[in-house]
Amino acid sequence: MEQHVSFVTLAVRDLDRCRSFYVDGLGWSPELEVPGDVLMFSAGERLVLSLWNRAAFEQELGAPALEGDGVVPMTLSHNVPTPDDVRKVLDLARDAGAQVWGPVEREWGGFTGYFADPDGFRWEVAWNPGPIGLRVVPDTDVDARV
Amino acid sequence: MEQHVSFVTLAVRDLDRCRSFYVDGLGWSPELEVPGDVLMFSAGERLVLSLWNRAAFEQELGAPALEGDGVVPMTLSHNVPTPDDVRKVLDLARDAGAQVWGPVEREWGGFTGYFADPDGFRWEVAWNPGPIGLRVVPDTDVDARV
Repeated sequence: MEQHVSFVTLAVRDLDRCRSFYVDGLGWSPELEVPGDVLMFSAGERLVLSLWNRAAFEQELGAPALEGDGVVPMTLSHNVPTPDDVRKVLDLARDAGAQVWGPVEREWGGFTGYFADPDGFRWEVAWNPGPIGLRVVPDTDVDARV
Repeated sequence: MEQHVSFVTLAVRDLDRCRSFYVDGLGWSPELEVPGDVLMFSAGERLVLSLWNRAAFEQELGAPALEGDGVVPMTLSHNVPTPDDVRKVLDLARDAGAQVWGPVEREWGGFTGYFADPDGFRWEVAWNPGPIGLRVVPDTDVDARV
């Protein structure tokens, strides 16, 4: 099989609230939208972030096993070219109503923080100066960052 | 902020078991590996799939709220150019020891099934003939598929 993730799908409780956060708050532009069912964003080359109504998700996959306020055992990261960009994106998320943690310097050399989307999915906003981190950010001369 | 997912990180209980599944079973090649801590794969242009030791995840983000056998409320999808490719990838996952569901025809016109990785994270293997589905698969003339 090709080594490739095509869609990341998050099962969300309230699509309208999600839309408000991602579109009005973070400034993302939907690529496909079926009100009450799904909201999809381009999130990279051959990559789509899909927010899917949780009831529909449950019908197809079964009930999620989450309870209480614990975190979903996964994160999405948004990597940026500089530590200052980390602060800017976290500020944007905070202004959009998100809870924010950090940023802090990590023992592996990076500078990262987290925010939670309306369903509690955690996004890490990261400056990662290692080779694998540099591979996922645009060239600093040509990007369109915050 | 740029509309971009850079890393998808899954918090896993047993990295060795995951390595065996993704590397030996599915044939993926690691890009970065810190035994006992993290295993990273290129998963697209400027995209990394990271499998992270769950204990380290918990230390940084808190305890996941999962219980029992319910599903994590998210999926990753691996899209392919033809329905027959869906069957082939699901067969590969089954041979690697994964539980598999489907594939079935979906009401939206696609043909998809799921498999679960060793930590229960669900991958959808999908043929999606819509415009957004065609955007995430390689050109059928030039891809290197199953």
